[in-house]
Amino acid sequence: MTREFIRVLYEFPAGVDPEKQGRMLAVGQTTGSFRPDEASRFESFTGILEDTSRTPEGRGRARVAFPSSNVSGDIGSLLVMILGKYSLAGPVRVVSLELPESYGTRGRFGMEGIQERTGVRDRPLFMGIFKPALGLAPEDFARILREVGMAGLDLIKDDEILPDTPSSTALSRIRACRPVLDEIRRATGREMLYAVTLSGRADRMIDQACRLRDAGANAYLVSPIACGFSVMETLASHPDTKLPVFAHPAMAGALGGPPDYGFDYRVLLGTLMIHGGADAVLYPTAAGSLPIDPETERDLRENLVASGLAPVPSAGLHPGALPRFLAPGENRIILNAGTGLMDHPGGPAAGVRAFHEALLRFRAGESLAPESLPEGPLRQALWKWGR
Amino acid sequence: MTREFIRVLYEFPAGVDPEKQGRMLAVGQTTGSFRPDEASRFESFTGILEDTSRTPEGRGRARVAFPSSNVSGDIGSLLVMILGKYSLAGPVRVVSLELPESYGTRGRFGMEGIQERTGVRDRPLFMGIFKPALGLAPEDFARILREVGMAGLDLIKDDEILPDTPSSTALSRIRACRPVLDEIRRATGREMLYAVTLSGRADRMIDQACRLRDAGANAYLVSPIACGFSVMETLASHPDTKLPVFAHPAMAGALGGPPDYGFDYRVLLGTLMIHGGADAVLYPTAAGSLPIDPETERDLRENLVASGLAPVPSAGLHPGALPRFLAPGENRIILNAGTGLMDHPGGPAAGVRAFHEALLRFRAGESLAPESLPEGPLRQALWKWGR
Repeated sequence: MTREFIRVLYEFPAGVDPEKQGRMLAVGQTTGSFRPDEASRFESFTGILEDTSRTPEGRGRARVAFPSSNVSGDIGSLLVMILGKYSLAGPVRVVSLELPESYGTRGRFGMEGIQERTGVRDRPLFMGIFKPALGLAPEDFARILREVGMAGLDLIKDDEILPDTPSSTALSRIRACRPVLDEIRRATGREMLYAVTLSGRADRMIDQACRLRDAGANAYLVSPIACGFSVMETLASHPDTKLPVFAHPAMAGALGGPPDYGFDYRVLLGTLMIHGGADAVLYPTAAGSLPIDPETERDLRENLVASGLAPVPSAGLHPGALPRFLAPGENRIILNAGTGLMDHPGGPAAGVRAFHEALLRFRAGESLAPESLPEGPLRQALWKWGR
Repeated sequence: MTREFIRVLYEFPAGVDPEKQGRMLAVGQTTGSFRPDEASRFESFTGILEDTSRTPEGRGRARVAFPSSNVSGDIGSLLVMILGKYSLAGPVRVVSLELPESYGTRGRFGMEGIQERTGVRDRPLFMGIFKPALGLAPEDFARILREVGMAGLDLIKDDEILPDTPSSTALSRIRACRPVLDEIRRATGREMLYAVTLSGRADRMIDQACRLRDAGANAYLVSPIACGFSVMETLASHPDTKLPVFAHPAMAGALGGPPDYGFDYRVLLGTLMIHGGADAVLYPTAAGSLPIDPETERDLRENLVASGLAPVPSAGLHPGALPRFLAPGENRIILNAGTGLMDHPGGPAAGVRAFHEALLRFRAGESLAPESLPEGPLRQALWKWGR
């Protein structure tokens, strides 16, 4: 049997000995101490410090290979092994993570499945967010959905901060919206997707996912960093939850932001999501309102696309910014806008039209300078939000 | 109806305006933007910036009150609300979190239940860890268990890095160990607890927990930060998983270590564990081998005890260090030792005896200086590990 390895590249602040720390990780996170006479028995379970290096800034790096048979094929036990207890010892950052191709749980739909379900392949998809979310009644969701769906929106999602609460149960939202999704399909010929937020303890979240699907839900929104990758893994593999899973990056900044701790966003929002069952991953974009290093974003997007997932740049998108989010001819992407769509001066439907208009002009190589545009939704959006 | 609030104290690096950020958190993480004419409708869902301050070092603080009806009564949606998307905006640290007393899921056993099950109330409990874990066969677990159980160990746990793998399934460990737990009960009159590691995707972890209990397991070990608080919430409330839940702090350093991000350990290993269903919480201790601020540790322990949970200081414990871990007369605590017990020169049973001997001497006010001790396990331990 060929042994498979999980390779982790760790980075330490300047002044820390990567050789020593790498050895502690390789041994301490696997077999720990054992007597020399027992070595043959434990060797195949012990991690291997493959090499160490220094960045130009003097930060130490150590690459450790862990036997993938040490873990359960899930993200949780993976995290316990690669960072787990060691994280308590001091600053360490996971800058890259290589998993065997077949490791973990893969999304059952990916970009391909989302394109197939929505029937849109020849352009990027547009996704909106119900805003403001808390305080809306089910009939408000239905009204907004009708408005944006008829105007040509492809997908919509709950705000991640709208969980299942007595004042707005996820089931009440789906019951109010399913008939509207059917109306939109009859009118446009397209199935619009509505990613509904899942929340609560694990068994209830799974039951809820099943009930929501029975009630006509056609996509899920989950925040795996806050709620557990283990739940996303179930959503992606349970026979009764066979719907596209949209992964929200809530809490990602706490693990991805600190330079000396946690995970590079490529790992946290890329590798872990890809092998944790996501079909689509929301992430901040340098062209939007949240900070992310452009190179990190590019690598992340490329990795998601190469793995068949839908990249969903989010936060701060508005129609005029479209050329900054999109490469010419790029179709395998979902552009997600909240206020940049819902707060359009002409209302949400005008917001949808402004995005479509911006895409058409961008693809035709035409200018998005407001003064060059005819009166209409795009011009209004540009006056409000600029480019 | 009285509105209940979740109060969060945020801290920002010097130079950040806590007023502005506090407002962004209060509004952005609840109702976001809404038109002034809609204010009455959304007001009851909107967070309130209660006050701001500066630490002596010039770091800004903001206290925000969130309506607890905005979330689902779980830790996942709580984390999405209090940190969620905002975490991506820049450095912010949750330094304290006040939840309504009844919020979330509470452990069904706590210290009281663990004392009742083990029959030990008049002294601290001693817990060991199977070491080295990876590479041992089920019969090795049984042999080690018999050795330490007969010598007077109260509890034992899997290493958290030993999940359910083909080479060592959790079920095989329980099947091998249950008869030994029965032997120990017959010999000592006490039920020894063995906390077995749960791992895998959420639905499997829950199924596994039920099957393990059917097979005679009497405690669970879970790493909620890595695997999801949502799973721990299920373990603590599902009718078929009614066993004490030991929460491991794996990954806690990634969220608790960075000074400008994440959570104070009092929140991460205290409040979130208490309201997330743990019965016992493992944490690093300043008297051990992992760094933690002694004041933080003291507050954390007091909060766990006041909430009825079992505090389990861990990592680096050995018999000679006992006076540094323990207050005189303190009984409501579980002392957890891995190598400091298993690697005793006289073997694991001698390790257990050394801990009991150290406790007796400590309680009698006697010295733990090795030269003052008779030959035996404690003296050997002191020569090896010091005090």
